[in-house]
Amino acid sequence: MSELRVAIVGFGKIARDQHVPAIAATEGVTLTAVASRNASLPGLPHFGTIEELLRDGPEIDAVALCTPPQVRRVQALAALEAGKHVMLEKPPGAAVTELDPLMALAAAKQRTLFATWHSRYAPAVEPAREWLSQRQIRSVRIDWKEDVRVWHPGQGWIWEPGGLGVFDPGINALSILTRILPEPVFVTEAELSFPSNRQAPIAANLSLTTASDLPIAAEFDFRQTGPQSWDIRIETDTGQLKLSLGGARMTADDQLMVDEKEREYPGLYRRFVALTKTGVSDVDLAPLRLVADAFLLGRRTLVEPFED
Amino acid sequence: MSELRVAIVGFGKIARDQHVPAIAATEGVTLTAVASRNASLPGLPHFGTIEELLRDGPEIDAVALCTPPQVRRVQALAALEAGKHVMLEKPPGAAVTELDPLMALAAAKQRTLFATWHSRYAPAVEPAREWLSQRQIRSVRIDWKEDVRVWHPGQGWIWEPGGLGVFDPGINALSILTRILPEPVFVTEAELSFPSNRQAPIAANLSLTTASDLPIAAEFDFRQTGPQSWDIRIETDTGQLKLSLGGARMTADDQLMVDEKEREYPGLYRRFVALTKTGVSDVDLAPLRLVADAFLLGRRTLVEPFED
Repeated sequence: MSELRVAIVGFGKIARDQHVPAIAATEGVTLTAVASRNASLPGLPHFGTIEELLRDGPEIDAVALCTPPQVRRVQALAALEAGKHVMLEKPPGAAVTELDPLMALAAAKQRTLFATWHSRYAPAVEPAREWLSQRQIRSVRIDWKEDVRVWHPGQGWIWEPGGLGVFDPGINALSILTRILPEPVFVTEAELSFPSNRQAPIAANLSLTTASDLPIAAEFDFRQTGPQSWDIRIETDTGQLKLSLGGARMTADDQLMVDEKEREYPGLYRRFVALTKTGVSDVDLAPLRLVADAFLLGRRTLVEPFED
Repeated sequence: MSELRVAIVGFGKIARDQHVPAIAATEGVTLTAVASRNASLPGLPHFGTIEELLRDGPEIDAVALCTPPQVRRVQALAALEAGKHVMLEKPPGAAVTELDPLMALAAAKQRTLFATWHSRYAPAVEPAREWLSQRQIRSVRIDWKEDVRVWHPGQGWIWEPGGLGVFDPGINALSILTRILPEPVFVTEAELSFPSNRQAPIAANLSLTTASDLPIAAEFDFRQTGPQSWDIRIETDTGQLKLSLGGARMTADDQLMVDEKEREYPGLYRRFVALTKTGVSDVDLAPLRLVADAFLLGRRTLVEPFED
């Protein structure tokens, strides 16, 4: 079986920290080129834009789009039109509806469009889903609180329209939630705190529920200094499940069930390689639809300005 | 064929101005009861809530929910669980995702869930769709500008989270747009003007497009005094189509093609009666998805306070 030749488009923090080592660690995929305005990787062909990559670059089979969400649609369109498979970082776009024509084009071209949700590949997510499937769930509480200055240094796009603000990490929690619960989730209330000088919220409190009236509360905050929280606590008829460290660790009734090294991105690339073999797509819009609804029905409050 | 016995839930302006006369004018449907906190109709059974209506009321087959969108989901759920068909005023809910479980329940109960878009029943909409289907479309411009004090007196819910503000009329234009164009539409940019004392925008400028890069501009404004605008202008390879008066009038190359009396709500009820005969649903979320995306990626600007 020949290798999947991938080019990374957008060579920022997530590309360097996650995509490059994951590609190196995954069978069947090779990093072939980089397209990025400013950054490059020694020894690899480099292009300023995806258009130059597609026109002048080496033969590739796929692109991994690691650019900010606001510019990804046009890049995905160019790649699919050129017959390439496309992996989208999360969130898959700046809007839900913009994915529709991309999905249609991927289907027409028989190419894979893969909207990734890396947190779903955390080690405890599938065990949690399995554990919950055998129990009655009573309530869910999500705390996703991190220091934006530590985790998103200089990422100005995150504060721009379409950048999602605190929902950029928060959507990771929603991607886990929508994977491990046995029924669909929807938003009923949201409180969004916008810094007075920014276009995206720095904190959000959500109420969500399901057809069976499950109470779900989520608190997202970008202003967390000290200990960071990426926790989901679920009360059931037989005790509490706790996912912590973003899904790397799971305890059930205070008993440690999973505690593994984070390995999300290699999981994503294994899945991408498998999908491209038949050219099928995997685009689950559920997490982004929840965020869009939170913006739609959210109560906005202005809070103190945020300076990076 | 027996009559469809309908109860109106929420007896505000739209119920009195549109639903009551439309039911009276439509074959096969009878107004049987009203549920409303404050208002009633002489000669008809009246209940304070939908729960009282369903428990103590006369036999009914269906409900028409004319309440504000923020409370409609719970009412639709109660009605479907009681085995009633449900007509939803527009917008169909306060969030896109809340419709998913309602659609699933309607299907399970074999009852009709009808998310209405009354503007699609304006006399010129189907002629416009037909006219456009035979032409190359070059651009679209929407102007939907009305005086909120004239058209929404005392409707405080419109300014609350989930009330949509200027998108409450604007979504009518989007419902026409998504009906008459031959391909799906998505939002690329939005500017939202929020009064500093309100939770919903008083004006919005949208850029939308399609897979074929059609440029679509929409301006919604609630501050329009003097002449009101509910116009859609579409440039094509053979001239301009103009829909005006909310779709009651159509000119093509300055030639009058349609100029009819508004008859949207009788059209809605004819459709509802037909749907209930087989219990199928009609829920097109496209207009609400566009509004959710506009909130998601919109640039927010604060403007002067609005006092009703």
